[in-house]
Amino acid sequence: MIESKLLFEDQTHEDDINGLYDALLQEASGGNVGYYDLPEVNDVENIKAFCAEYDFEKRGIKNIAVLGIGGSSLGTKAIDALLEHGDNRNDINLLYFENVDPNEIVQNFKNLIFEETFFIVISKSGGTIETTSHLKFILLTFNISLESDAFKEHFVFITDENSPLDKFGEDFGVKRFYIPLNVGGRFSVFTAVGLLPLHILGYDIAKLMEGAGVLKESFFARNEDTLCKKAYFYATKAEEIPINVLFSYSTAFKYFNDWYVQLWGESLGKVNIDGTKVGLTPIGIIGSVDQHSFLQLIIEGAGDKSVTMIKVKKFENDILIPDISLPYLEKNDFINNHSFTELINAQCDATMQSIIDQNISVDTIEIEKLDEKSAGYMIFYYELLTSLVGNLLRVNTYDQPGVELGKVILKKKFEA
Amino acid sequence: MIESKLLFEDQTHEDDINGLYDALLQEASGGNVGYYDLPEVNDVENIKAFCAEYDFEKRGIKNIAVLGIGGSSLGTKAIDALLEHGDNRNDINLLYFENVDPNEIVQNFKNLIFEETFFIVISKSGGTIETTSHLKFILLTFNISLESDAFKEHFVFITDENSPLDKFGEDFGVKRFYIPLNVGGRFSVFTAVGLLPLHILGYDIAKLMEGAGVLKESFFARNEDTLCKKAYFYATKAEEIPINVLFSYSTAFKYFNDWYVQLWGESLGKVNIDGTKVGLTPIGIIGSVDQHSFLQLIIEGAGDKSVTMIKVKKFENDILIPDISLPYLEKNDFINNHSFTELINAQCDATMQSIIDQNISVDTIEIEKLDEKSAGYMIFYYELLTSLVGNLLRVNTYDQPGVELGKVILKKKFEA
Repeated sequence: MIESKLLFEDQTHEDDINGLYDALLQEASGGNVGYYDLPEVNDVENIKAFCAEYDFEKRGIKNIAVLGIGGSSLGTKAIDALLEHGDNRNDINLLYFENVDPNEIVQNFKNLIFEETFFIVISKSGGTIETTSHLKFILLTFNISLESDAFKEHFVFITDENSPLDKFGEDFGVKRFYIPLNVGGRFSVFTAVGLLPLHILGYDIAKLMEGAGVLKESFFARNEDTLCKKAYFYATKAEEIPINVLFSYSTAFKYFNDWYVQLWGESLGKVNIDGTKVGLTPIGIIGSVDQHSFLQLIIEGAGDKSVTMIKVKKFENDILIPDISLPYLEKNDFINNHSFTELINAQCDATMQSIIDQNISVDTIEIEKLDEKSAGYMIFYYELLTSLVGNLLRVNTYDQPGVELGKVILKKKFEA
Repeated sequence: MIESKLLFEDQTHEDDINGLYDALLQEASGGNVGYYDLPEVNDVENIKAFCAEYDFEKRGIKNIAVLGIGGSSLGTKAIDALLEHGDNRNDINLLYFENVDPNEIVQNFKNLIFEETFFIVISKSGGTIETTSHLKFILLTFNISLESDAFKEHFVFITDENSPLDKFGEDFGVKRFYIPLNVGGRFSVFTAVGLLPLHILGYDIAKLMEGAGVLKESFFARNEDTLCKKAYFYATKAEEIPINVLFSYSTAFKYFNDWYVQLWGESLGKVNIDGTKVGLTPIGIIGSVDQHSFLQLIIEGAGDKSVTMIKVKKFENDILIPDISLPYLEKNDFINNHSFTELINAQCDATMQSIIDQNISVDTIEIEKLDEKSAGYMIFYYELLTSLVGNLLRVNTYDQPGVELGKVILKKKFEA
């Protein structure tokens, strides 16, 4: 399904690899880090039952509006973009109330009819200021009282049990799904946070979890040395190579890149247990587009980047470049009668070769086909990789203490 | 209109600043770097005349399809996203044939009616393989012969004079606009590359150029010391602070970020005249969204980043956060009755303060209002800044030799 290869020299010993397997096994069985459990213990059946009873089609729901930011939105966006070209995606429109940019909010209300919309309010803490502000604005705009049936029937909350949002929902009879307390926001896409909207959009969420499970089983059976070696390389070279570029040859990875940037940046950018500020900077780019943008910097820049090339071997649509010879442009005819899939993948290979020629560390991930199973695998792959690197960098991979001060300052500004 | 401030300690002497003004003046008057001339010498009038005669409305044109990649698409995307919430934008749909991802191409054809579409084919070299492949596919799909009136009437080419695309267009009577030979692709948004689609979309392109002209005049009158000081800081600290983050507090900057990443990365990631690989890595993020993603890495990470905060003081839509108190969520009521504009800008200030507290170098750009004039100013601001830094890093800011090898390898793969 997915093949991963390192094209740089591995410097690990068997002990290093075993140490990493041990560390993650300990973490996974310790109970503090819950995302490891999600392939088996998840809300797939609850969500299916809820949705079957709710019956979106019968109620005429045409829009899903997700109110959420950061870990509450990026995972769903990532998976929807990976899979939207497949057969399972239905016609329901997905929109996000995410930023508090007033123009974005007003734009969201264009042609938005309340009766046709199902609102999913997501906040792990239950008190995210962007999300509660959006909720208030929606309630006012559509004139929805908290006591009304409309509120109960068109809203669902996803949050931690006993959070303010949970208690609020309980008092007014709003359906809630819970994020396990030991699953952090950026690791939460396999909770209801991602699974509920993705199921409503038509995706096979059981297959998604199956894909994650395949990798989990293989990893804990100690069959994923490549992943460990890659983590070891990134962590031990963090000072020399502080930037990790994910270079995916398909537009479908656009939001996967954003999800990766949050996961990697927020998990690994930390003061470690020795009191040292560490961190690896994630960058996500798309081929072939960014051959015309970021590639020059990779090739001739300061040598401070590793590159992971992601290639999709089969696309849903296999269209050909027509056998047309345009006058004066005959030099491009070598690609005629080849498919666009061949072109984009040959561009991936050619670019990779030109990067390797500069002695830049490259690894590859080849995906047979983008579907629920491979998407689930890819998400879990990067979650495991993040945990491995975090372990080696000796940081707390799962907190985000650096962003709290800004929230305190914000509140003071309005209280002054 | 726009105010720029440095919040880090400036280390320049008067001589450094004067040297930079002199260097850019020399470059601007030397004739090899043409973008400096565009505020005065441009195609605004030609484009207006062409469009008035063509009459998009009368012909029922509902879509503009831009075939172009990199410098041929990013500038237009950037400016359209900055301004689309304003009054001037009409209802014409803008779509891009950019990546050669087959799913993206098929998606573009959904509901695309040839008679309602105007195709703008953009390639500076006139032979970009992605763009010619898209062109061939469009010709075949809509069954358009090169000799037909449909081809002449629905296509325009933007390219270098005497390029293969120019000669092809000339032979078949297709209207061409030229990119001046001394204007590089990533500096070309103020040529027809950007101005033609932006004018068709309803924007006031003369005002765009006026905004660029305001900064140009001020810079060459030696009134822009801040810009020079900022460039000096970035260039002299390139090893210690190799990553420059642009943190804009409005979703409207989404594509401006991509444009900036290309401009900065491709211009400055180079082997310099001493044979040393240099480069500064650009990263574009959006507030408040990325407070929930990348901010942790800035605050607690390795200290290898500078941050530019961009704030928009007035948004078109000034909506209020309703005075609703949600049970259990009263702690967020401090923001009630304030506008979303106040919230997003207070978040910008609070985040900035929390970054400065970590001794990270910050500068700010405050924009009174997003309109054509300020957009033109911002584009020219980053072009000048790039030229200044390139001068100090002693690279050729305007070439991109690192991406040629990949193209050669690609061709060989198909010839083998």
